[in-house]
Amino acid sequence: MTKKVRKYEEFLVGGREEFLKRVEEGYRIFQETRTYAYPTWQYGEPKGKLFKVEVEDSPRFGETAYVELDSARTAFVAIDMQTDFCGKNGYVDVMGYDLSLTAAAIKPIKNVLDAVRGTDIKVFHTREGHEPDLSDAPYNKVLRSKIIGDGVGIGEKPEGGLGRLLTRGEENWDIIDELYPIPGEVVIDKAGKGAFTTSNMHLMLKNAGITHLVITGITTDVCVHTIMREANDFGYWCIVLKDCVGATDYGNHEAALKSIKMQGGVFGNVSDSERFIKAVKEAGLK
Amino acid sequence: MTKKVRKYEEFLVGGREEFLKRVEEGYRIFQETRTYAYPTWQYGEPKGKLFKVEVEDSPRFGETAYVELDSARTAFVAIDMQTDFCGKNGYVDVMGYDLSLTAAAIKPIKNVLDAVRGTDIKVFHTREGHEPDLSDAPYNKVLRSKIIGDGVGIGEKPEGGLGRLLTRGEENWDIIDELYPIPGEVVIDKAGKGAFTTSNMHLMLKNAGITHLVITGITTDVCVHTIMREANDFGYWCIVLKDCVGATDYGNHEAALKSIKMQGGVFGNVSDSERFIKAVKEAGLK
Amino acid sequence: MTKKVRKYEEFLVGGREEFLKRVEEGYRIFQETRTYAYPTWQYGEPKGKLFKVEVEDSPRFGETAYVELDSARTAFVAIDMQTDFCGKNGYVDVMGYDLSLTAAAIKPIKNVLDAVRGTDIKVFHTREGHEPDLSDAPYNKVLRSKIIGDGVGIGEKPEGGLGRLLTRGEENWDIIDELYPIPGEVVIDKAGKGAFTTSNMHLMLKNAGITHLVITGITTDVCVHTIMREANDFGYWCIVLKDCVGATDYGNHEAALKSIKMQGGVFGNVSDSERFIKAVKEAGLK
Amino acid sequence: MTKKVRKYEEFLVGGREEFLKRVEEGYRIFQETRTYAYPTWQYGEPKGKLFKVEVEDSPRFGETAYVELDSARTAFVAIDMQTDFCGKNGYVDVMGYDLSLTAAAIKPIKNVLDAVRGTDIKVFHTREGHEPDLSDAPYNKVLRSKIIGDGVGIGEKPEGGLGRLLTRGEENWDIIDELYPIPGEVVIDKAGKGAFTTSNMHLMLKNAGITHLVITGITTDVCVHTIMREANDFGYWCIVLKDCVGATDYGNHEAALKSIKMQGGVFGNVSDSERFIKAVKEAGLK
Repeated sequence: MTKKVRKYEEFLVGGREEFLKRVEEGYRIFQETRTYAYPTWQYGEPKGKLFKVEVEDSPRFGETAYVELDSARTAFVAIDMQTDFCGKNGYVDVMGYDLSLTAAAIKPIKNVLDAVRGTDIKVFHTREGHEPDLSDAPYNKVLRSKIIGDGVGIGEKPEGGLGRLLTRGEENWDIIDELYPIPGEVVIDKAGKGAFTTSNMHLMLKNAGITHLVITGITTDVCVHTIMREANDFGYWCIVLKDCVGATDYGNHEAALKSIKMQGGVFGNVSDSERFIKAVKEAGLK
Repeated sequence: MTKKVRKYEEFLVGGREEFLKRVEEGYRIFQETRTYAYPTWQYGEPKGKLFKVEVEDSPRFGETAYVELDSARTAFVAIDMQTDFCGKNGYVDVMGYDLSLTAAAIKPIKNVLDAVRGTDIKVFHTREGHEPDLSDAPYNKVLRSKIIGDGVGIGEKPEGGLGRLLTRGEENWDIIDELYPIPGEVVIDKAGKGAFTTSNMHLMLKNAGITHLVITGITTDVCVHTIMREANDFGYWCIVLKDCVGATDYGNHEAALKSIKMQGGVFGNVSDSERFIKAVKEAGLK
Repeated sequence: MTKKVRKYEEFLVGGREEFLKRVEEGYRIFQETRTYAYPTWQYGEPKGKLFKVEVEDSPRFGETAYVELDSARTAFVAIDMQTDFCGKNGYVDVMGYDLSLTAAAIKPIKNVLDAVRGTDIKVFHTREGHEPDLSDAPYNKVLRSKIIGDGVGIGEKPEGGLGRLLTRGEENWDIIDELYPIPGEVVIDKAGKGAFTTSNMHLMLKNAGITHLVITGITTDVCVHTIMREANDFGYWCIVLKDCVGATDYGNHEAALKSIKMQGGVFGNVSDSERFIKAVKEAGLK
Repeated sequence: MTKKVRKYEEFLVGGREEFLKRVEEGYRIFQETRTYAYPTWQYGEPKGKLFKVEVEDSPRFGETAYVELDSARTAFVAIDMQTDFCGKNGYVDVMGYDLSLTAAAIKPIKNVLDAVRGTDIKVFHTREGHEPDLSDAPYNKVLRSKIIGDGVGIGEKPEGGLGRLLTRGEENWDIIDELYPIPGEVVIDKAGKGAFTTSNMHLMLKNAGITHLVITGITTDVCVHTIMREANDFGYWCIVLKDCVGATDYGNHEAALKSIKMQGGVFGNVSDSERFIKAVKEAGLK
C-alpha cells in the first residue's frame, strides 16, 4: 500500500512560527496566571472592560482556570427558552419528557439576564421553529417527531396544545414570559438544532463584533451543544453556564458538560451563573 | 409586556397540507412495518438496491425499528481514523488518554469496510488537520492543545512523536494503515470537529447524490457527533454504528450514543457493525 | 524559489476514471443531440417528466443547445420582486434609478408563473430584507444606502415612502401584487444579495429535492447573479430567463447575461420566457 | 388576495435606534470628509495604522471618496493567479480565450505585492482547483468544460498541456512564478468560483482578524466578483483594484467594475494599484 504524500516547501509554513509565538505567549501567561488571556494581538484593544470568569475542570478535571473576556465583545446567548422546550403543552411536554429538567434552567438564566442587562454585554435569544408551510423542515425530522408524539408531530397541534408544534408564530413556539427579550436584545430564528447553517446567527455575531459567547438554554446535549460546536469550530470562545442549561435526560446533560471539558476544553469551558454574575459585578460593568 | 406577533395568511401555509400528507403516509408505514421507509416522493426511485438496517432503541428505548436505505445513495463514513486520534505518538496519545478506547473501533470498521467495498455504497474518510502554516487553526484551539499537551500542541512535534500534531502532510495526521482508503474512496480534509463549514464535505455528498450516512470513527462525542449534527440539520439520514465509534472517555461515548436516541432519534439512529453487515449481505449488494 | 509539491498516489485518483466516464458519456450525448441530458446516474430516474429547454449562445456564442430537466426536480425562482426593487417609493425608486428597467420583468415573469402553476415545478420567491432591529444588516451596507439615499437608508422611512426600506414587515418590502405567492409556493427571506449563506434557501431546495433552477427576478447583476453563483458552485443547474430579469443599468444587465455564457456556461445558461413556456407546454406538464 | 402580515412590537426594534445612531454618525463624517471612516465602535481601536484609499465613482459616478482601513486588519487578496487562468497551456488558454486580457493584471498585482510585503497587511492567495479524484467537482461544471474544450475538460490533460486542468497538484494549477507566495502568506484552495462555501477562506479571515479586503486577480466577472459578493454579504469592506483584475472578455470586465459601483457601492468600492500603493506609502506602513 502506498500513501498520499503532501510535501510542503518552507515558504508555505512561513506564517507558522509567528503564530506559534503568539500561542507560546498565551501559554506562558496561562502558566503564570491560569488565565486564557484576551488575545489583543488578534482582536485588538478591548472595546469595553476586560473581566475574568472562573471556569471549572480546566485545563484538567479538578483544576480551576479563568477566561478573560472583553465585555463589549461578549454575547450572552439564551438558547431555545421556548414553551415548546420547557413549558406546558409544548413539544417536549407532548413527547412525554419531564419538564422539570429543562425548566430548572429558567431561574438561573433570569438571574444572569438581570446581571447583564444594562451592561455592554450583548444579549441574543434563539428560537427553534419552522415556517408555517414547513418548507425549512427536513422530512425525517418531522416524521420522527410524529412517531414519538404518537401521531402528532412538528407542524401539528396536539390535543389541548397551544398551537402547532415548533411552528413560527405559534404561542408555544415563542420564548417564555420569564425570559422574554427586552428592547435591544436580538432574536435568532433557526430551523435546526444548530444555528450557523440554518439561521443568520453567524452574520449577527459578526455584525456585533462578538468574540466570546456565554451560553445558556436548552437542551444541553442537543441545541446548546450544537451551537457551541459550530461557534467553536470558527474560533469563538464559548463558556457554558452549567446551571443555566438542562436536558430531557439528566445523564445526557451531565455527560454533555463533561464532554466540553475533555482535551483541555475541546468545545470551550464550563462555569455557572454564580461565578459569572460575580465576575460581571466585580468588573463594575454597570 | 407585549410580544412579537407574526400572523400568516392561509396562502403561506399552502404547502403544509401536502407535506403533512407525506409525513402521515410515512407514519402509517412505520406503524405497520416499524420501518423508516425510503421516501421516493422526495428522492425518486432508488438508484441501487433498497435494503433495511435494524436500529436500536427506536422510536423509544427498548424498541427496535428499521431504516430503509438506497445502496447507491448511501455513504459509509469513517471519521478521523488517523494516527493522531488512535495511534501511538499521535495527538490523543500525547494528551495522555487511553488509546484502547478509540482504537477499539478499528476492527469493527474494517469489517464493515470489507462488506461495503465492492458494492455501490460510497466510502468517505475524513481527516482533521490544519495547513502547515496553521492559517485555518483557531488560536484558542491551538492554545488549549498546548496547555493540555504540557507545552506541545497542534502544529508542534512532541518528543518522540512522528511529526507535527494535527498538521496536514505529517505521518501522524494520516489515516492508519488498517483502514487506509483504496481507489474510488473519497478523502475529506477538514479543519474543524465538524465538516460542513470547515471542509467541502457537503459539496462532495451532493455531488455523489447521497441521502443516507452510515457513520463510524472517532471520537464519538466530538467529531462523530458534530458531523452527525450538521448532516442531520440538513435532512441527511444518519445511522451510527456503535461498535465502530469510540471516545477518549467511555461515559461520554455511552452518553453520546444515548443522546442520538432521544426524542425519537433527534440526531438519527444507532445500530452496530453486525446488523449493518447482515443487512448489506442479505440485500446481495455485491 | 521552490514551490509547494503535492504528489498523489494512484489510489487517491481511483474515483476519477469512473467519473470521467460519466462526463465522457454526457459529452457524447451532447455531441449527438446538443442536449445537456438529465444525469440519471447522479439524480436517479426522473420523478416528474423530462423536458428540454432551448438555451442560447451555448456552448459558444451564436449556437443553440438544450438543457433537459426533470419537472419534479425543477424550481422556478422569482428573486426579490418586491416593491423595494421595482415599485413606487421603494428602495430603488428612492435611490433615483429608473423603475422601468426592473419593472420590465414583471409581465414576463407573470407569464411563466401562469405556465408553471398547476404543474409539478416548485415555485420559490425570495425577499431581501432585514429584521426590524437591523441585527442582520451589515453596517457598511446600511451606511452606503443612507449616503446614496441622501440621508435615508435601509431601516428608515423616506418621505412619502410606504415604510422603512428593506425592512421585514413593511409594505414596500413585500412582493408586488402582480406576482404575489399563492398557496404551495415557498417564500425565502434573505438578508444578503445572495441566499445560500444568509437564508435557508439551500436547506429548502434540498428538502424539495431540487436539481435545476429556472431563475428570474431582479436585479440581474446583483441578487440574481449572486444566487446563481452560489447555486452553481454547489452543482445546481441554473437557467436564467433573460426577459424575466432586469437591472438598474441596462449595460450591466446585458453584461451580466453575457457573463453567464462565457466558458461554455460558467454560471449556467440563458433562455427566455417564450422558450421556457413553450417547453413546459409541449411537455404537457399539466 | 390577502398578504402575509408580520407585526413587530416595539421591544423587538429596540436595537434599531442605537444602530441607526452609529449609521447617522458615519453618514455625518462622510458628509464632512467624504470618507467611509473605520468604525471603531464595531471593530475596536486600530491594531495597526489607519490609512485612507481613494476610491472612484463613489458614492455616485464621477465622484471621489475615501475608505479608511486599519492596516493590521486589511487583507490583500490575489485571486486565482494560476497558470490555468493566465498562463500558456492552462485552462483559459485551452478554451481559446485571449490570454493578454487576464495576464494584464500580473504586473500591477506585483507592484502592489511589493508595496504591501513587509507591512502588517496580510496577504492571501486563492487557487481554484479540484481534488485529483474530482470528488469536489460538480458534474455540470466538468461537462461544460469538456464541451467548450472540444473534448478536454477539467481533470484531463490537453495535448501539449502541462497537466490535468484545474487539478490540484498539477503545474498548470499552481500560482504563476511572478506572483508566487512568500513565507507568511496564506494560500486558499477553493473548489468553486466563490470561496466562502467551498473553502476555509472565511475561517482564515476570521482567524486573522480581517475587516477589509483589497481584492485583485482573475477573472473580474467570475471569481473576483463571486468572492467579493460573498465577503460583502458578511459585511467585509471590499475594494477592487481595477488594473489588478482582468477577464476573458473586456466588456464583462468593464461591466463587472461598474456593477460594483451601483447603489452607492453595492458590492464595495473600486480603486487602482497606483492609488492604493500611494496610500500605503504615505501611511508609512513599513
